Amino acid sequence: MDIAAYMADVGEQARAAATQVARSTTAVRNQALLATARALDEARDELAVANSRDLESGRDNGLDVAMLDRLELTPQRIDAMIEGLRQVASLPDPIGEITDMTYRPSGIQVGKMRVPLGVIGIIYESRPNVTVEAASLCLKSGNATILRGGSESIHSNQAIAQCLARGLAEAGLPETAVQVIKTTDRAAVGELITMPRYVDVIVPRGGKGLIERISRDARVPVIKHLDGVCHVYLDSHADPEKALNVSVNAKTQRYGTCNTMETLLVDCEIAEDMLPLLASAFSEKGVELRGCDQTRAIIDADEAVEADWEAEYLGPILAIRVVDGLDGAIEHINRYSSQHTDSIITENFTRARRFITEVDSSSVMVNASTRFADGFEYGLGAEIGISTDKIHARGPVGLEGLTSQKYVVFGDGHIRT
Amino acid sequence: MDIAAYMADVGEQARAAATQVARSTTAVRNQALLATARALDEARDELAVANSRDLESGRDNGLDVAMLDRLELTPQRIDAMIEGLRQVASLPDPIGEITDMTYRPSGIQVGKMRVPLGVIGIIYESRPNVTVEAASLCLKSGNATILRGGSESIHSNQAIAQCLARGLAEAGLPETAVQVIKTTDRAAVGELITMPRYVDVIVPRGGKGLIERISRDARVPVIKHLDGVCHVYLDSHADPEKALNVSVNAKTQRYGTCNTMETLLVDCEIAEDMLPLLASAFSEKGVELRGCDQTRAIIDADEAVEADWEAEYLGPILAIRVVDGLDGAIEHINRYSSQHTDSIITENFTRARRFITEVDSSSVMVNASTRFADGFEYGLGAEIGISTDKIHARGPVGLEGLTSQKYVVFGDGHIRT
Repeated sequence: MDIAAYMADVGEQARAAATQVARSTTAVRNQALLATARALDEARDELAVANSRDLESGRDNGLDVAMLDRLELTPQRIDAMIEGLRQVASLPDPIGEITDMTYRPSGIQVGKMRVPLGVIGIIYESRPNVTVEAASLCLKSGNATILRGGSESIHSNQAIAQCLARGLAEAGLPETAVQVIKTTDRAAVGELITMPRYVDVIVPRGGKGLIERISRDARVPVIKHLDGVCHVYLDSHADPEKALNVSVNAKTQRYGTCNTMETLLVDCEIAEDMLPLLASAFSEKGVELRGCDQTRAIIDADEAVEADWEAEYLGPILAIRVVDGLDGAIEHINRYSSQHTDSIITENFTRARRFITEVDSSSVMVNASTRFADGFEYGLGAEIGISTDKIHARGPVGLEGLTSQKYVVFGDGHIRT
Repeated sequence: MDIAAYMADVGEQARAAATQVARSTTAVRNQALLATARALDEARDELAVANSRDLESGRDNGLDVAMLDRLELTPQRIDAMIEGLRQVASLPDPIGEITDMTYRPSGIQVGKMRVPLGVIGIIYESRPNVTVEAASLCLKSGNATILRGGSESIHSNQAIAQCLARGLAEAGLPETAVQVIKTTDRAAVGELITMPRYVDVIVPRGGKGLIERISRDARVPVIKHLDGVCHVYLDSHADPEKALNVSVNAKTQRYGTCNTMETLLVDCEIAEDMLPLLASAFSEKGVELRGCDQTRAIIDADEAVEADWEAEYLGPILAIRVVDGLDGAIEHINRYSSQHTDSIITENFTRARRFITEVDSSSVMVNASTRFADGFEYGLGAEIGISTDKIHARGPVGLEGLTSQKYVVFGDGHIRT
């Protein structure tokens, strides 16, 4: 197979389909989403067969239990895909919205119209339900999509792709509006991320290694999320109960998510009072503590080394540092934070105001758990990912992040003088 | 000189300065702009000396007349730089604006806060006044800037940089908030566009060759503008007088600008009536016409070849094509347009509505000259450039294009359950 030729063909078809999707009405795109939901429901047997092929070769290839679990399409996961499609169909259509339409002194009217980006490339790892999730958000926002899932889920993804194709066809949209790459050859990824003529943006979803590789080699803009090194800072004016509750929630509500707290910063003024309470709460949850010298003078904790301040543990480990007031906290955060989500716990208005201004992260919070940094919690209705970039989209990325705005100008024969 | 070490040093200082600029108040940033204006006024002699050094070596190096003209800092151009700084100071501050603050079902409040991008790299060619223009917009929007002008204007740029440094110092901002690269070594550009650690976005301003090179090699996002192949389409329901006036204005008001019309599309139904009127108007202005076969059957014109539909003439040449109604026009535009600015002339509501939806360009217009595609005409107050990209910013880019939005979340000890 000539991968470059195959991918150019996929790209050309996606570009052509994108024009048609962009012109389609809200009703037609919703119809495609709902028809896909029905197609998935009707194809449960085919999905199970395809998925068991993937699981079997996964086992043969020695995939670990966690990987096999992510790969599995249980009936509940199929239900969730179907429900997800219905939810995306019920979201408001971002496309076509015209805002800020005003008259200019020249007499022209100028406004902005929200439009699709065009063709979106999604690169992801094992979970086959991402195929439906990502495709539905891209379709809802008027884009064509090229999906490249993990090679271990190729049969499941192809079976899902057939349901998507049926849904698109039923609504009268081109089946090429959503294409799942048919080869597991890694060269296909290399092509996908270097075809600016056919692909407008790449959204990688997966481990840090994958995302770093893609960012490094892409010749197309990438909406990405690298690390989630999130902080909670307990200010000396914190309400102790809120401080304790938020700290425990931010660390332990789920360990493996990017918005989980990795480092707790405690103002030196309250360290002696707060640290023992925290230590006992975390010990109850089985969280291993690693602390700076000042922390270790007050509570039992392993020694935190430089690498701990940069670590995304994604597990029951917490780094704790005693800092010298708000300045110390902001300095630590702006140095070590991955600019994902950082929270201050304080009752002091002025300090809260400084924190949200001076901490340069995609989400800055006051008296709330970092675990809230999520498209659904923020009311975006959906989430294609979280961006730690500054360009185009920061923080949780919903439908709007898959769109752009063009200018519309209305006149009555106006000329420039 | 070790260019890599020098540029890393410049980048590190810019990053540190960016933090301070981002925290500075509106008043302080405006003070720096106004102090720079005064410094330029007081440094007219030094600017003249530095500029004459550049002009002298320019002449020695055989620069052409147009290039030498762009290079010259006349007293009027210095006046314009000073006036420009005052205007930028008077613009509203985009930074810190909080929008869309709403309560979520969980009880948290979520909104978006406009923040600077951080460090902006500007790469430009001969005109030294770009140094002030670009630096002032970046500073107003809370960013630090690294400027790399043409090697032929190095002395002028350094003299301007000293005025900027004085202005910044007077306002208590770090002088490193605006740095003009001190070496003319081309390797400095290579470093600047590959330092994502220190530079958040590159804005290249100059010829297509420069911008293509930078886009190809950059490892940092680039806000760019490649071509301006703009169209006016005269629909069969066009008002003939508006059609004539807008066509002439779009082509002849200025030849060398990116928003100048390069191709005129005429509906076949009105070609016989309109083309002779157009030909006579353009002949009066000395515009050379190149037409398709149908055009040449009606008026005198050279033959337009395929390359003409893709050409940005930037001069008194116009390509004319007779098309088969709105579908033919949209098909031609979406194939050949550089997605910059395209306009329809029509009295028909439905066709106007289809044109603005189906033409995928950064500015789409109805009954207005393409020459209006400009940050000032659109009310942005200023323009750092025009983007033909889809990501982050499309069309004229003002202060807002140099900013981003982060999420702010307010709670009262809220935890996620």
